[in-house]
Amino acid sequence: MKKFLILNGPNLNLLGSREPGIYGSTGYEALCEMLRARAAEMGAAADCFQSNHEGALIDAIHGAAGKYDAIIMNPGAFTHYSYALLDALKAVDVPCIEVHISNVHRREEFRHTSVTAPACVGQICGLGTYGYVAAMAYFLEADHG
Amino acid sequence: MKKFLILNGPNLNLLGSREPGIYGSTGYEALCEMLRARAAEMGAAADCFQSNHEGALIDAIHGAAGKYDAIIMNPGAFTHYSYALLDALKAVDVPCIEVHISNVHRREEFRHTSVTAPACVGQICGLGTYGYVAAMAYFLEADHG
Amino acid sequence: MKKFLILNGPNLNLLGSREPGIYGSTGYEALCEMLRARAAEMGAAADCFQSNHEGALIDAIHGAAGKYDAIIMNPGAFTHYSYALLDALKAVDVPCIEVHISNVHRREEFRHTSVTAPACVGQICGLGTYGYVAAMAYFLEADHG
Amino acid sequence: MKKFLILNGPNLNLLGSREPGIYGSTGYEALCEMLRARAAEMGAAADCFQSNHEGALIDAIHGAAGKYDAIIMNPGAFTHYSYALLDALKAVDVPCIEVHISNVHRREEFRHTSVTAPACVGQICGLGTYGYVAAMAYFLEADHG
Amino acid sequence: MKKFLILNGPNLNLLGSREPGIYGSTGYEALCEMLRARAAEMGAAADCFQSNHEGALIDAIHGAAGKYDAIIMNPGAFTHYSYALLDALKAVDVPCIEVHISNVHRREEFRHTSVTAPACVGQICGLGTYGYVAAMAYFLEADHG
Amino acid sequence: MKKFLILNGPNLNLLGSREPGIYGSTGYEALCEMLRARAAEMGAAADCFQSNHEGALIDAIHGAAGKYDAIIMNPGAFTHYSYALLDALKAVDVPCIEVHISNVHRREEFRHTSVTAPACVGQICGLGTYGYVAAMAYFLEADHG
Amino acid sequence: MKKFLILNGPNLNLLGSREPGIYGSTGYEALCEMLRARAAEMGAAADCFQSNHEGALIDAIHGAAGKYDAIIMNPGAFTHYSYALLDALKAVDVPCIEVHISNVHRREEFRHTSVTAPACVGQICGLGTYGYVAAMAYFLEADHG
Amino acid sequence: MKKFLILNGPNLNLLGSREPGIYGSTGYEALCEMLRARAAEMGAAADCFQSNHEGALIDAIHGAAGKYDAIIMNPGAFTHYSYALLDALKAVDVPCIEVHISNVHRREEFRHTSVTAPACVGQICGLGTYGYVAAMAYFLEADHG
Amino acid sequence: MKKFLILNGPNLNLLGSREPGIYGSTGYEALCEMLRARAAEMGAAADCFQSNHEGALIDAIHGAAGKYDAIIMNPGAFTHYSYALLDALKAVDVPCIEVHISNVHRREEFRHTSVTAPACVGQICGLGTYGYVAAMAYFLEADHG
Amino acid sequence: MKKFLILNGPNLNLLGSREPGIYGSTGYEALCEMLRARAAEMGAAADCFQSNHEGALIDAIHGAAGKYDAIIMNPGAFTHYSYALLDALKAVDVPCIEVHISNVHRREEFRHTSVTAPACVGQICGLGTYGYVAAMAYFLEADHG
Amino acid sequence: MKKFLILNGPNLNLLGSREPGIYGSTGYEALCEMLRARAAEMGAAADCFQSNHEGALIDAIHGAAGKYDAIIMNPGAFTHYSYALLDALKAVDVPCIEVHISNVHRREEFRHTSVTAPACVGQICGLGTYGYVAAMAYFLEADHG
Amino acid sequence: MKKFLILNGPNLNLLGSREPGIYGSTGYEALCEMLRARAAEMGAAADCFQSNHEGALIDAIHGAAGKYDAIIMNPGAFTHYSYALLDALKAVDVPCIEVHISNVHRREEFRHTSVTAPACVGQICGLGTYGYVAAMAYFLEADHG
Repeated sequence: MKKFLILNGPNLNLLGSREPGIYGSTGYEALCEMLRARAAEMGAAADCFQSNHEGALIDAIHGAAGKYDAIIMNPGAFTHYSYALLDALKAVDVPCIEVHISNVHRREEFRHTSVTAPACVGQICGLGTYGYVAAMAYFLEADHG
Repeated sequence: MKKFLILNGPNLNLLGSREPGIYGSTGYEALCEMLRARAAEMGAAADCFQSNHEGALIDAIHGAAGKYDAIIMNPGAFTHYSYALLDALKAVDVPCIEVHISNVHRREEFRHTSVTAPACVGQICGLGTYGYVAAMAYFLEADHG
Repeated sequence: MKKFLILNGPNLNLLGSREPGIYGSTGYEALCEMLRARAAEMGAAADCFQSNHEGALIDAIHGAAGKYDAIIMNPGAFTHYSYALLDALKAVDVPCIEVHISNVHRREEFRHTSVTAPACVGQICGLGTYGYVAAMAYFLEADHG
Repeated sequence: MKKFLILNGPNLNLLGSREPGIYGSTGYEALCEMLRARAAEMGAAADCFQSNHEGALIDAIHGAAGKYDAIIMNPGAFTHYSYALLDALKAVDVPCIEVHISNVHRREEFRHTSVTAPACVGQICGLGTYGYVAAMAYFLEADHG
Repeated sequence: MKKFLILNGPNLNLLGSREPGIYGSTGYEALCEMLRARAAEMGAAADCFQSNHEGALIDAIHGAAGKYDAIIMNPGAFTHYSYALLDALKAVDVPCIEVHISNVHRREEFRHTSVTAPACVGQICGLGTYGYVAAMAYFLEADHG
Repeated sequence: MKKFLILNGPNLNLLGSREPGIYGSTGYEALCEMLRARAAEMGAAADCFQSNHEGALIDAIHGAAGKYDAIIMNPGAFTHYSYALLDALKAVDVPCIEVHISNVHRREEFRHTSVTAPACVGQICGLGTYGYVAAMAYFLEADHG
Repeated sequence: MKKFLILNGPNLNLLGSREPGIYGSTGYEALCEMLRARAAEMGAAADCFQSNHEGALIDAIHGAAGKYDAIIMNPGAFTHYSYALLDALKAVDVPCIEVHISNVHRREEFRHTSVTAPACVGQICGLGTYGYVAAMAYFLEADHG
Repeated sequence: MKKFLILNGPNLNLLGSREPGIYGSTGYEALCEMLRARAAEMGAAADCFQSNHEGALIDAIHGAAGKYDAIIMNPGAFTHYSYALLDALKAVDVPCIEVHISNVHRREEFRHTSVTAPACVGQICGLGTYGYVAAMAYFLEADHG
Repeated sequence: MKKFLILNGPNLNLLGSREPGIYGSTGYEALCEMLRARAAEMGAAADCFQSNHEGALIDAIHGAAGKYDAIIMNPGAFTHYSYALLDALKAVDVPCIEVHISNVHRREEFRHTSVTAPACVGQICGLGTYGYVAAMAYFLEADHG
Repeated sequence: MKKFLILNGPNLNLLGSREPGIYGSTGYEALCEMLRARAAEMGAAADCFQSNHEGALIDAIHGAAGKYDAIIMNPGAFTHYSYALLDALKAVDVPCIEVHISNVHRREEFRHTSVTAPACVGQICGLGTYGYVAAMAYFLEADHG
Repeated sequence: MKKFLILNGPNLNLLGSREPGIYGSTGYEALCEMLRARAAEMGAAADCFQSNHEGALIDAIHGAAGKYDAIIMNPGAFTHYSYALLDALKAVDVPCIEVHISNVHRREEFRHTSVTAPACVGQICGLGTYGYVAAMAYFLEADHG
Repeated sequence: MKKFLILNGPNLNLLGSREPGIYGSTGYEALCEMLRARAAEMGAAADCFQSNHEGALIDAIHGAAGKYDAIIMNPGAFTHYSYALLDALKAVDVPCIEVHISNVHRREEFRHTSVTAPACVGQICGLGTYGYVAAMAYFLEADHG
């Protein structure tokens, strides 16, 4: 059974209350429950971890080696500048997909693109919380040769 | 039954023979068949159209209004400069997801980001041909409030 | 009698239905009729051509030599990147005025200015569809020494 | 009867003697007379004001509120840097069209575009002194809905 | 016998009449004849194709695979922005040399360099129409190890 | 008794009527009265001067030497480009605080920061008209060693 | 009684010993005492929190919701790059004023401006430790309509 | 007898008291006297004019036509942004040399170079007040063919 | 006896397993042992500290004052953006040498140079783990007047 | 008989041993012999000169006036920064073609283009050592009107 | 008696024959004679040295220490990039004035300003060969306190 | 016995007399003696070469092949622009370490980083003349696998 680590970065603990017009009204806990349920439906398991501390996320990535089949990460604002997260992803042998709930291409402040995405398999943005589900589904599809 | 228009831009007719290390070995026709089959499995229908002509893609987008529930588009190299495609997507009332087979964040020439994505619901990249499937699955999920 | 070629670029066939808050509610056909009528009132003639294909617009510019006294062109999104249209205008001996329906100086995406305007007599923007009329009136004024 | 305020910025008092290859040989006084005559022909009235002082132009814009139906302004070199003129236009409820006698898109120093145009209805350039006439005609056309 | 495909992009059909001070007075048809004759002298064959349509040039490049030994292409204005042509050249297994009739290094608008040249064997510019001949001669030289 | 010179730059004479959503509904005269009253409450005196003319503001700064203990200046749009104001502040031995009524960090056109602030003690922005009061209070606090 | 949260970012615990020529000789503890005293004088209360950990500051901002009437924050070096602090401020409904002890407009390394200020009411810089006092005074003034 | 107009821009009236380490301790009046005396020694005449108002300097340049043989101008801070002064110099047929008292190449804020110098014969900087004398001497030398 | 604090930033705990082609196969613990041994050979002592938390590194720098003679720091990815580390180094009176194991001048992402190096004595890069040894040797050399 | 001066810049004396994957395995002496032989075959003569000293190349260009019919120059790394070579070519009346052995458009460091090419007739790159031959052949073709 | 070293950089040996429209028709030898004569008239002596070799100019600057009272240098194209000349001037205790014969502010390629001027007393440009004379006259004026 | 070539670039012959506050008071000859002595102590040999001529340094690098085990180079100002030195280092099979006496990260003019370092093993800066010693020690350490 495949195991996923769902990582969420700074401020995502406030999901649902923070700018719901952009991020929707689902709270962080509800998101985790939904993802665990969807993973189970697909015959897999998902663990969720959120932190506002960059170092804690790096530690979590390091700890994922050998324990998880894949990471699904929404780096939040770290997307713009955390070269340390980039290095952490490069340093472990666990594939990662970067997820953004909103369409970052529409928000000017994001225009300098993601510094973390080059260490990922790919990126999904704008699909709301479904983006996390799509990422899990991808890893459960058989061959990506 | 939901109907999807799968649009592929320049050079995607050569899929499978063009830089298979990056784009995989599935040919364009095989991609279309797979997408039609996956759509059918999900209770939907998918039509595929490919062109190397920017104007032909614009015409296709215009023609999609009233006929398709959603567009799934891989603009190929037009991603970099086709403001005309951007305008076409804004001009019609059909939601679109932009798909890239490879992880464009790893390829330097793409660094100025997508000019077409701001008119889309979102973007999926790096998931290979599964990206098209994930986009269809997104549109078939019930509520995106 | 002076003859004008009115060229409209990509997506202008959707005039009236596309973002009416910016571009007004007059449709493309109504625009053509209005321009033909206004031309006739001023003792001139106007032919209209629209295409979403860059090459078709270039062909039309080439074909204008010897047949039209002036071109009035709204290049739409090609304003941003079509150096080929720029070269086409330089290559034929027919004066051109560039027209934009909205005030492009207010729209950030236009900030890199027009690549086609340097090959034109001048540019009119923000006057709505009256911009086309003003361009015709300019060419019908006697001396521009 | 509609009343227009024609504002001309620095060095336009030397019109006719300054670089006639670019700006034509009509002098500033002749321009004013011509514009008053053309306004009268169209059933309107035009007052002309020129100054080399940025502050005097701002004062004139402030003074136009309630006295003129529209401003037609050629800001001359202030186009490049007068954010104070931009603010003045935003601060009063009188519509303005920006006019340039030459095609500024051909002159490299103008490449950073106009800082004043975003506060205007639109911009006309390259039509010589006819540009001022076209601007008056625009304001006299009935509906710009 | 080696076969060459000579591709010419937008506005090159007007060769001879367009800015002869820069591009010379040889017309497009005369160019083709000269190139066919020079090819024959060297024991080879040359076919010429010109289009103002980016998509048509892409189709021609795709069609060259298996039919021509080399492509010699003057992309005209597409040099500046056609990433789609770049991708087309990368997608087929036919070597290409890019030719420009004038010395593009002297013309400021070309300063962002060629986007298509990275997919070519090399580039020749400034040698007038002889540049096409030099490209053919290169491909007919024996070893380029 | 400490004496303050309150300088206001271009368009601030229209305070209250100009974009009240951003700048509030207090008029310029009311602002002056309020500042004189607040100064008096704190045992100081405030004189107010406003001009749309850059040169007049420079003259006022020069004239403040030996007459005022401090300058509190809102340079309006001159913030963006008046290196002459910057030099004037450097040339006189009177400390100055720069005040902006709105939060300029939220307004894109201000993004190139203030050219005048480097010659000031500091800058206050976004506190509405209270910013002027805070600046006076600062100068009346005893020691800024 | 209004309650303020005074947040200080990295290295401000060393206030007084760090570059006293720029930041003064008041130590961090003395600063806190002074601010608590000044708050009490004005009939309010101030709590101080300092951390060198970005995540701890984010947690503190999240925790301020419902407990404090306003935040007064000196983000220290995070001003330059902490998009995560920006998002934290946007996510909670507590107004914040950004304070810098020195005039950041004079220090070149700050020239790319503040990334956190757009989420604040305003910014005060260069007034030394009085800047914190001015910010509290602002929030205690009655109406900021 | 040749006549020179010595123009000095904003803040140069404070010469001698303003940053004497950079600009020397000679006052503005003493500068004028010295220049008049040096001109007389060389058999010429010099008139001096200083203003903090950009418009007044433009007016003076316009008025120099037919009255002076040459202008020697120190534009002060207008060097950085006064495209209106640039245009004024181009508009009159009087040669001008731009003078800066200090070596502007050593001062970072001048790094965007002079916007006014392209309309001048040349520029002298760093020679202190002798720069004005050298400019007069240049114009009195016989042939500059 | 001189005491050194060896600081290592994010992801350096994975040394040896992370991209060994670039960083070598020595693990982090082995590095520490080697450095302690080499320090002892030279009659000095070395303590090692690694953290993925920026704040923890700042705390360690603060704590080094009075306890260590010098810091030798490899900031890892913080090199690119940690102005907070820069400030921490400036705030304490302990000299620091920055060490990078690989030659950062060869890696494009490092091209914006080090933001932390300006607060250091110097920088050593590309010498592998010997760089740490060279830094200790430098501090043990007698006079650096 | 036409005479050519073949100039090669820094490091080209190491041709054949330096990065043969890019520059081929022909040594510098073999190149010279081949070019002399090819020149003779075409009824011309070629002299070769190589130097690692920029000044020596400039001297050679100056000396070519009146002695050679054309220069064929591979400036090596001087292509990037030798404005002095550019000036030397402009200063003498001998036409020059710039040759690069590899396709410089593929190598990122060359992206700021050639500073010397604007003073040349044209540029050939990517054709290996055949590029020198093509340049000679060009100059021996009859008319380049 | 004051002694001057007149240094001229690359291509200035061709003065008179090189682009006489810009640089005049005086040859290099005539320039030297004129300068020696003018120096003698003013009671001084001038030695001239020209080289196309950057290193030779550096050697000459080093050798000037203790032998010459001042250097007058026209660095030619080295103005753009010779940081080594800049360092040479900083390293010796001989004041230098930089001279350019033409007005470099009119020539676009010079827009990145002079890299050598910051090590000079000042710069004179556009005064033709008189610029060298003005520089000598400056050094012979008594006090530059 | 290992042999080192110590290369010093322009102006380093003036070491000790040039800006001793930055570069120390050791003269060039004393540096060479010290390095030869330190090399001998470590059982190696060091030869020193200095030139102000870029070409002479390139020649020295070429000549080092087969004669020296390593190069230790301080390129002086050539660090900023000598792509020819970069190519020379790439062309020979002798490892090089780049040394700077001062901490170049503190000097703004160096901000575009080193153009020569990418061809080196690594770079040492800010360690004074000890940097050369550290480089030799590195090469004498046994294994750098």
